[in-house]
Amino acid sequence: MTDNIAIFITGGTLDKVHDTKTEGLIFDPKRKSRVSAILRQGRSRAVRQEVLFQIDSLDMTDDHREEIYQAVINAPEDHIIITHGTGTMELSAQYLDGKVENKTVILTGAMRPQSLGRSDAGFNLGGAMIAVQTLPAGVYGIMNGQVFEAQTLHKNTETGRFDD
Amino acid sequence: MTDNIAIFITGGTLDKVHDTKTEGLIFDPKRKSRVSAILRQGRSRAVRQEVLFQIDSLDMTDDHREEIYQAVINAPEDHIIITHGTGTMELSAQYLDGKVENKTVILTGAMRPQSLGRSDAGFNLGGAMIAVQTLPAGVYGIMNGQVFEAQTLHKNTETGRFDD
Amino acid sequence: MTDNIAIFITGGTLDKVHDTKTEGLIFDPKRKSRVSAILRQGRSRAVRQEVLFQIDSLDMTDDHREEIYQAVINAPEDHIIITHGTGTMELSAQYLDGKVENKTVILTGAMRPQSLGRSDAGFNLGGAMIAVQTLPAGVYGIMNGQVFEAQTLHKNTETGRFDD
Amino acid sequence: MTDNIAIFITGGTLDKVHDTKTEGLIFDPKRKSRVSAILRQGRSRAVRQEVLFQIDSLDMTDDHREEIYQAVINAPEDHIIITHGTGTMELSAQYLDGKVENKTVILTGAMRPQSLGRSDAGFNLGGAMIAVQTLPAGVYGIMNGQVFEAQTLHKNTETGRFDD
Repeated sequence: MTDNIAIFITGGTLDKVHDTKTEGLIFDPKRKSRVSAILRQGRSRAVRQEVLFQIDSLDMTDDHREEIYQAVINAPEDHIIITHGTGTMELSAQYLDGKVENKTVILTGAMRPQSLGRSDAGFNLGGAMIAVQTLPAGVYGIMNGQVFEAQTLHKNTETGRFDD
Repeated sequence: MTDNIAIFITGGTLDKVHDTKTEGLIFDPKRKSRVSAILRQGRSRAVRQEVLFQIDSLDMTDDHREEIYQAVINAPEDHIIITHGTGTMELSAQYLDGKVENKTVILTGAMRPQSLGRSDAGFNLGGAMIAVQTLPAGVYGIMNGQVFEAQTLHKNTETGRFDD
Repeated sequence: MTDNIAIFITGGTLDKVHDTKTEGLIFDPKRKSRVSAILRQGRSRAVRQEVLFQIDSLDMTDDHREEIYQAVINAPEDHIIITHGTGTMELSAQYLDGKVENKTVILTGAMRPQSLGRSDAGFNLGGAMIAVQTLPAGVYGIMNGQVFEAQTLHKNTETGRFDD
Repeated sequence: MTDNIAIFITGGTLDKVHDTKTEGLIFDPKRKSRVSAILRQGRSRAVRQEVLFQIDSLDMTDDHREEIYQAVINAPEDHIIITHGTGTMELSAQYLDGKVENKTVILTGAMRPQSLGRSDAGFNLGGAMIAVQTLPAGVYGIMNGQVFEAQTLHKNTETGRFDD
């Protein structure tokens, strides 16, 4: 069943790394993603992964969302996971919602970068892997061990959580 | 929805810790589980957790499996996760299969203890949290980012993986 | 011998933590330090620790350095470790050098925060603990497994290392 | 100065890794050591490393100790670190003590394997790197942030610590 799954990577906190020189959190200069390391740690079967771009989701525009949309509908796979920053995950979910037929599309991400340890990235991606195989066609967010439909996905910036 | 989820803890690799004195891997002498730490790292909503026992699944007998079964059917929750050693996970799944009506029961575990770092425990438990909310009533195993029905759950001791 | 050792904490990269809300690296709002966790992980004997302040060493002024100096000379201990940001560690070493008699003063820090994992903090602090017990009175920096006298301590901002 | 340092690796807890199949702690089948990873994390300058053998120190015989001794006296370097299991570290220190002239020899190790995370290996090896450069010729143990002369090195098996 895993032959029919693809992961599109768009950046977000999940993929940030510590930069010794600037003392800040940045994306890998070569756009390399941590997603494959997360899958390997989870001993997950390999699935196709493609880095669309590596940006902070607060910098994401509708041009970026259109690029995600094109990647989703043109993919040969019917089960799509999108790693995404939490800041505007709900906007991308709404952008895709209703436009994609016959595919299960899961957005997920992390509140703490995978590279810093003690991250929620593995828990969320493990959930997304199951969600993409068990949920009917549609657009969903998987965060905090919960399933959110596109229209109910909402980050509570006070608590730093997605709540229903 | 998380009000309707319970986790029963039975031990297995997931919960082992390094013992400095004997240099081996043991269970916490007070039977304390790492499950709550995994959920916290995943920023998951709290769910009810109960330690039934903490044993290596190779030491599990049908008496233990009956105890798990009783816990499952007597639980007020309809969505049950059981953390379990990988060695005999399939035997417990088969023991429960067909006996539990109207409940979704998920067995999961890990190949590397959570306490040792770089473990698959978070990935698997994150998957189990989603599976228990999305799968219809029945008994399943969640490992490696895959869903296995009770009768197809099988550990390949050569590869150290669950394969279909 | 450890009764005669004190650690003064001044901040720097070593003590930074990831802030989920701002996505940046900050000091603990309550100025709590990671130094005690590092010592515990190293199974080191407890030594007296005191947080003087928690700042980025690029923000350090001579007023801060005077505060460090006063703490050093007023301490009952003769063996003093100062955790310090790497950016201006050499300036503080030079400020103290020649002013402190009959005490061994060691500056150390880290290039990657201890809280992010895979940090050099433990290696450096382990070295500082030994240096403070084995070196004669004077002011030194301990970084990269090397001993630097105050006048030769110098961070190479290109390589992110202290080289002689 | 680091050109004149060598590390001889003999195994011990420091170098053990978790084996998924047997669920136990073993040495890497190819005798690969974690010492280089510890030095890299500490951003230490590279020093010559040589694996003499990889064994539990409780299995160490005087033949092994003679092999260590020959390695020490034949090394071109005058500053020698030996990584060693904690169980019989004191016996090896006493074996070498008085036989090696004009060299500083440091034994060190760990109570928790480096590969399991939250290990004391980095703290101890960071201390050993400084000790080997600052202590006069002789044989010493570095554990818990303390310096022990060969004749006073003693593991307290009750506390799992080296105490004076």
